[in-house]
Parts: sequence; C-alpha cells; structure tokens
Amino acid sequence: MELLVDHHCHGVVRRDLDRAAFEARLTEADRPAPGTTLFDSALGDALRAHCFPLLDLAPTALPDAYLERRLALGSAAVTRLMLHAAGLAAVLVDTGYAPEPLTSPAELGEAAGARAHEVVRLETLAEDLAGGVSAGGFAAAVRSALAAAAARPTTVAFKSVAAYRVGLALGDERPSDLAVATAAGRWLAGGGGRIADEILHRFLAFAALDIALPLQFHTGLGDRDVDLSTCDPLLLAPWLRSAEPTGVPILLLHCYPFHRHAAYLAQVFPSVHMDLGLATHNVGARAGAVLAEALELCPYGKFLYSSDGFALPELHYLGAALFRAAAGPELAARTTDNAYRVYASMD
Amino acid sequence: MELLVDHHCHGVVRRDLDRAAFEARLTEADRPAPGTTLFDSALGDALRAHCFPLLDLAPTALPDAYLERRLALGSAAVTRLMLHAAGLAAVLVDTGYAPEPLTSPAELGEAAGARAHEVVRLETLAEDLAGGVSAGGFAAAVRSALAAAAARPTTVAFKSVAAYRVGLALGDERPSDLAVATAAGRWLAGGGGRIADEILHRFLAFAALDIALPLQFHTGLGDRDVDLSTCDPLLLAPWLRSAEPTGVPILLLHCYPFHRHAAYLAQVFPSVHMDLGLATHNVGARAGAVLAEALELCPYGKFLYSSDGFALPELHYLGAALFRAAAGPELAARTTDNAYRVYASMD
Amino acid sequence: MELLVDHHCHGVVRRDLDRAAFEARLTEADRPAPGTTLFDSALGDALRAHCFPLLDLAPTALPDAYLERRLALGSAAVTRLMLHAAGLAAVLVDTGYAPEPLTSPAELGEAAGARAHEVVRLETLAEDLAGGVSAGGFAAAVRSALAAAAARPTTVAFKSVAAYRVGLALGDERPSDLAVATAAGRWLAGGGGRIADEILHRFLAFAALDIALPLQFHTGLGDRDVDLSTCDPLLLAPWLRSAEPTGVPILLLHCYPFHRHAAYLAQVFPSVHMDLGLATHNVGARAGAVLAEALELCPYGKFLYSSDGFALPELHYLGAALFRAAAGPELAARTTDNAYRVYASMD
Repeated sequence: MELLVDHHCHGVVRRDLDRAAFEARLTEADRPAPGTTLFDSALGDALRAHCFPLLDLAPTALPDAYLERRLALGSAAVTRLMLHAAGLAAVLVDTGYAPEPLTSPAELGEAAGARAHEVVRLETLAEDLAGGVSAGGFAAAVRSALAAAAARPTTVAFKSVAAYRVGLALGDERPSDLAVATAAGRWLAGGGGRIADEILHRFLAFAALDIALPLQFHTGLGDRDVDLSTCDPLLLAPWLRSAEPTGVPILLLHCYPFHRHAAYLAQVFPSVHMDLGLATHNVGARAGAVLAEALELCPYGKFLYSSDGFALPELHYLGAALFRAAAGPELAARTTDNAYRVYASMD
Repeated sequence: MELLVDHHCHGVVRRDLDRAAFEARLTEADRPAPGTTLFDSALGDALRAHCFPLLDLAPTALPDAYLERRLALGSAAVTRLMLHAAGLAAVLVDTGYAPEPLTSPAELGEAAGARAHEVVRLETLAEDLAGGVSAGGFAAAVRSALAAAAARPTTVAFKSVAAYRVGLALGDERPSDLAVATAAGRWLAGGGGRIADEILHRFLAFAALDIALPLQFHTGLGDRDVDLSTCDPLLLAPWLRSAEPTGVPILLLHCYPFHRHAAYLAQVFPSVHMDLGLATHNVGARAGAVLAEALELCPYGKFLYSSDGFALPELHYLGAALFRAAAGPELAARTTDNAYRVYASMD
Repeated sequence: MELLVDHHCHGVVRRDLDRAAFEARLTEADRPAPGTTLFDSALGDALRAHCFPLLDLAPTALPDAYLERRLALGSAAVTRLMLHAAGLAAVLVDTGYAPEPLTSPAELGEAAGARAHEVVRLETLAEDLAGGVSAGGFAAAVRSALAAAAARPTTVAFKSVAAYRVGLALGDERPSDLAVATAAGRWLAGGGGRIADEILHRFLAFAALDIALPLQFHTGLGDRDVDLSTCDPLLLAPWLRSAEPTGVPILLLHCYPFHRHAAYLAQVFPSVHMDLGLATHNVGARAGAVLAEALELCPYGKFLYSSDGFALPELHYLGAALFRAAAGPELAARTTDNAYRVYASMD
C-alpha cells in the first residue's frame, strides 16, 4: 500500500463519545433532523463498509453496536487503529480550530506512525494578537507573528478561512497600511474576537505570500455557518492572478461542489493546486465519481490528497480508504509526490 | 411495487390533445425549434421507452402513432392508465397554477387510486385578495387566508414561487408591517395581478412558517420566464437560517442543475428536504446519474419523491417509473416514509 | 465513418514546434507548473491514446519521442495527417484571433479535404475600424463592415467574445446610438485597441442579429484571462430573451463547466444551440461523461460538434475522435445535420 500524505487534517478528540456526540461530529450538520440519523447517508454507508470491519463488526451491524465497541476499546485505541490503517507518510495538521481539546500534531503523527507538520491558520494567529496590539500596529504584529510561526520547524504552510468569514471574492490589490489599520481599528473596537472583514482577510493572505510558505484556502462545502454561494473558488480568481507572480503554491481545499471550477484554476494557474478534502468522506462510494470530475481539467501534478479529518479518527481513515479506492495506486502515489514537491520544507 | 407519495404535482388537462398541443406541454420550452421535435430528446426517449408500451405501442413507433392512439383512447382513459401505472399512495397537488382547466386534486387522486391532498400556492392565495384588500390590510388578510386554507382538511402544505418572480435571494429578516403595506400599496396601485416583489414573497414565506405546515419552494429549472441563475437554492441559505428555529419542514423542489447545492443544504439544515421533481422526467435515462449526485450529500431521510407532473399524465407516470428504476425499491420506500413524516397531517 | 462539421475552430501554426512551444499550445494554461508537464493530464492521456498511434508511436512512447517524430514529419505533413483523420465535411474557422501566423480557412479546409467557411469575430471587425472612425460614426461603420463581411461568400457566422472581455451579463436592451457613440468615444480616446465595454459588446451582438447570420458566443472555460465566474451562459438569458423574436440561431460554444446550464437554455429557447467545443479535448476520456450531462436537457436537434482546435492540428483531430467515441454514429451524424440546418448558407 502506497503511503499517502494527508496534507490537511485536524486533531481528534481525546475522550470517549456516545452516539449523539459521535453523530454530531460526522458531518457539517450540527445535528440530525428529527426522526433521522446521519448514519443513513452516503457517509453512513461508507462508515459501515470501511470502519465497522476495522472494529471486527460486519457492515450490517447496528450503529449502536459500533458505538459500544468503540467505547469498549477506548478513544486512544480507536485513534491508533484508524490512523494506522490510513497508511500515512505524513500528516499536515491545521491547529487553528479546536472548539474542544484535540490531539496535537505530534500526537496525531504518533498514532499514525507518520511525520507530523503544522498548518498555521492565519485568522487564528491574527485573532490571538487582539489583546496586545493597536490598530496601527496590527499589520506589523501580524507580519512578525507570521515570521515567527514560519520559523518553527514544524510549520509547513498557512491556511486562510476567508471563505467562512467573508467569502472568496477577495480584492486583487494589497490593502494599504492605512486601510489595514482602519479595519483593525473597527475589529478591535468591536472587542477583537472573530475576524470577518474582507480587508483583513485579504491582508492576511498577501502577508502570508510574503513568507513564501504554501498557502491553503478553504473553498466549497463547510459547516452551516458558511455561505456556500460565496465559497466558489472561481471567486478567488482575481486574487490568484495577483498572487501568481510570487510563485507561492496555493492549495484549494475541498472545493466540492465546485471541484470542476477548482480544476480549471489548477489548469490555468501554475501555482494553484487542489484536493477534495472533506468531500471525499462525505460522498462515500461516490468519491471515485467526484474525483473523475476533478481530474477532467486538473493536471495530475496539481492534485493532492487530504482527509480534512476532524475530531473523529474514522474520518482520517475513511478519507484515505475512499481516496485509494477512487484513485488507484498510481495516482495515489502521485499525490504523495506532489505533496512533497509543494511542501518542500517537509523534507 | 412499493407505492410512492408524489409530494408535488399538478392536475392534468381534461381535453384531447393533438401533437402540437402535446409537445407544447412536454418540457419547459413553449415550442420546439424550427426543424426539430421535442420527441428528439432524453425525455422523448423516455416517453418511447416507458409510455408507448403502456398504450400497446412498441418504443420504435412514431410519435404520430402515439398521439393517434392517445386520441382514440380519450383523455380520461389515458389519465387513468398513466396515473394508475404510476403506483401512488398519495398525490399532493399544487392547485395554484392552471392556465387551462385541469383535474382537481380529488379527480387526480381518483384516477390514481390514491389519496389526494392539496398544496396551496402562497402567491396565488395572495393575488386572489387583490380585489378586496387595502395596502394596510394586506398582511392581516394574507394571514387570515393562510389560516383558512390550512384549516381545510385537504391542505397539507404551502408553496412559494418566489424563484419565478424575484429569485431565491430572499432577505433573512421578517419585513415589518409597514414595509409589507408599502409594497402591497405598490402592487395594488399597479392593478394587483402577478406579485413580483421581494418584500411580498419574503413576507408570504415567513407568514407560511407561522402556520407551521410544510413549505415547498420552487428551485432550479423551470419554464423560460425563470431567470435560472437566480434559482440556485444556495441563494436561499440566509432565509433558511432564519427559518430554522421554527422547525417547519422546508422542501426544495426540482433543484436541478443545482441539486448538489440543495443536497448540501439538506445535510446541514435539519428542517431542509429536497427532491428532483421535474428534472426526473426531463433527464430520462439519466435520472439515476442525477439522483446519485443528489445523494452524495443528502441524508436518505431528507429525500422525497415528486413528479411535478403537469397537464400530461405521462409526466406523472414517467416520473414514478424513472424514479423507481433510479432509486431501487429500498430508497423508493424510504421516500414514502419520509413524505409521511414530513407531511404529518396526511395521516 | 460519418463526416462531422467542425462548426468552430481556428487555424494551425505553419512552423515546426519544439516541446515547450507544443505544450504552451496544449491547454488554456500559458505554461506548465514547475516540476510538472501538461502531458500528465486527461488531455495528455488522450494525446497518447489517439495521436501517438497516428504518428506510428505506441501510446506508451515518451512525449519527447512524439515531438521528435512530429519534427521529422514537418508541420505541414502533421497538419494534413491530423486534419484528414478528423473526418470532416466542413470547417467553420474563426479568423479573429491570430497571435501568430496561422493557416487560412482555405488552407485548413484543403488539409482536411473539407469545405471551408469563415466565422467573423465581431470584436476584431470592430477593433479594425479604430484607425479611421469617429465616435459618432462608429455604429454606422460597424453596421457597414458587418454587411460587407456577410456579403463575402465564405462568411457563414459571426462570433462574440464578450465573455472574455466583460462577461456574459449583457443588458437586454439595444443601446441607443448616443450610448454607443459615448462608449466608442471612450474607447477611441484610450487609443482604440482591445474593446472591453459592455455597451459596445452588446451593441455588436444586436448589430449582428440584424444581419441574420448565426451568432456564436464564447461561454465557459477559456484561457487564464477569462473570469470564468462571469462566463456562465445563464448570465446571457436576459439578452437571449430579447434576441429570440429575431429567430437568428444562437450558438453557445464550449459551455463547460456550465454545460448543463447551456443545455437548459437550448431546451427553453428555440433559437439557442450548444456544443462542448474545447472541453471535448480537454477532458479526454471523460468526453462521454460530459456529453451525457449536456444531453440531459439539450434536445438532440440543438447540439452541434466543434473542436475549437487552435494552433495544434492534434486538437482538431482529438476533438473529432473523442466526440465520435462519446456520441456514437447516430448522434454524430445528427450533429452534422444540425450544422447544415443552422448554417443554411453553407449549402
């Protein structure tokens, strides 16, 4: 089995989960509809087909039986089992979103028997500055924090979640220092907290380019807070055109249901790459169909693998299992090569 | 054969149709292009494959032969034949659009051997008030008419055609009584008639939520009056977010070619459901491919069946035949369960 | 083998090409990404499968071997080989874009053993007037140049590249002579050159309708200058509604990844037709899957074939080979009939 580089994922929860807590972390829904269960979905079918057998249960077993077996084994054992079965050479862990305690990159890497690297979320880095920065000092403080993050040997990339906050229609010009200071002033006057200001997200993206580490963008489907109509990666095209002369690799994550749009961008912009991220496990047995659509235009050298696994180690494993089945060994190996070329600092 | 609930359809014409009149009702086009026929399409192929044999004609028979046989049998017999063959437990009939005399819900149900229920179109209900209402009294009159409609034992749902009139980018706040009165004043000053005002459509949708019957929305493809780029169900997301605390079931109809977008909404919003409606018969043998795309994200408990059959009973039958072939017996039965859960008042 | 009408293509380069020059003309990218090659893509696979054997190389041969063989044969011989293998009855050649010397329509037709016709690009025709026209005289000069172009026996259609310049959201009203003069004045004051003004593109499209030759529109994917989010053919719907009473055939070219949107327009507007153009060779072995999506709604009488081959004769051949395999002989023959009906002046 070819080892994969999971170039975008998150930590997993450290505690045992009951069924409601498990289901709440399965998809981007925050809860099932009355009278339904999230096990009744393409993802549920994939869990039964791929994960149940890993816990020695038949795919026809009941979800409750799976949750019981999971509790009996304990969270740490399930994590090791799933992550090891994923067959990973490296995990690149986005550490910027942790609404509950999650494993660290090192812990996740150890469970996977893989090298661990960190993806630094731009907005989290900036939001952490809120307490001790002035509006006028914001830009410099961000630049300095980015440089410090990049200097840590574990850091291999930055990530923008502009899609979640203001959508992907970022302007194509670097905002002036004055514009950044004004926007930062508004943000600080509102108490800091969650940044959702096009100027600030745009500034962060341009500032990340200056560091020259690869830059990941959330695009396409996400949780219910996202306004999906503003997450079409085509909306990022003007910004991509501005960013291109830097040659910094840009990674469009997830992309679904706009994966053909992302593939077009990957064809025409030399620095743009893509993956299917969390779509892979969400669509289950349809991963091959979706991948085929992405590869209509995406050059094979521009496609990477990621699970976007979050909280449940099943998602890290499912992504890998479904992707391998969809891609076949040659393309799977190719995505690993692509990841090492893009994230040159991993070596 | 599992019986289906056709949760959104219309009546059929009561008179005999010649070929031109038949073709004019086949698709969303109002006429074929010069030198072509609408029988030469995926829908035409499906008619030949599924409907010709019901009238004892081979699929290779000529359209004119089919129209002759149809005339020989007479409109009422063809309607009984097609509706019965559809295998329906219940029909939910939108009575709000009848540019020519159509069968009533009771007549359609009788032809189908199925229970019949009514879907009340919000805009038609409101437009019927034009003669006897003032701008300031419009909101109260609508609320009263909605309550009266809901009190009729046949009524099981409301339906919005905002998509056809102003698109789906409805605001997420309830318009104030003053705003409604002002908009109603503009509408009445223009002579009443067809409502096409974002404030009024939004008001109608919120007013329907207050009644707590399920609310259907036209989304996606429709006739040539529709501006399809404004019918992407993703544009309704802000309104859906506002509506969600009410828990009222929302049904996104048709959705094609935005069915993956609708499926995302059905995944992340517990109250949102979807179907493929008129896309099912329009795409013919591709219904399975389109359904597979929708079920990538749509939880199985959120998917319903409808034909959106209108005027021609062939469309009610074709929808059912194509859907059964596409979905298989397990999912087909599931959509019936889903319909009874959503439209609880049907029981 | 049924002969095809390639109803939209370009000339090919007359000189021999090395590998870098060949790859630069393969896709809409202007160069491959560092460390990758455009041969590693769906298009590259299609080249290996279909074009390598035409030059007596196995599909497993290296790209360099193909380029060597190509050089040994010489540009003219490769052009004849590829164009002849395409099996064409007629080529309709867009002569409005030639960043380097290309074969004329007559030369391309001779290489193909096919009749050659010309598609006149509206914007090129207008831009050529820049030297000798006043703002106030622009509209009349355009009308006169259009009439002169239409009078040439080789001319069978016009083409708009509004999509490339301002997007497809053209207004639905004819601009007034004053508005055209004002816009032309701005353009001339800027030195003439490339037109990119919604009023002027709209004026050109309406002026072309008056001539009553079929009118092609670039839609969907194009090179990296295009803002793909503005090239969705649905955005052209208001203009199409205005144009429809003229009955002039409208041809939506390429359309991918919005081909289902174009197919909807082809269903509901009698004068609208579509093709898959350059998407056909770009997606390689997926051409059948993409075609199946387009034919969900597009009536078979409204679908045409084009390669959009440009510069490399391989693209003219690949389009035809992939389309034949995707469409089968019946639909392939049908597209030829459709082309002769639409471009009635070809006979």
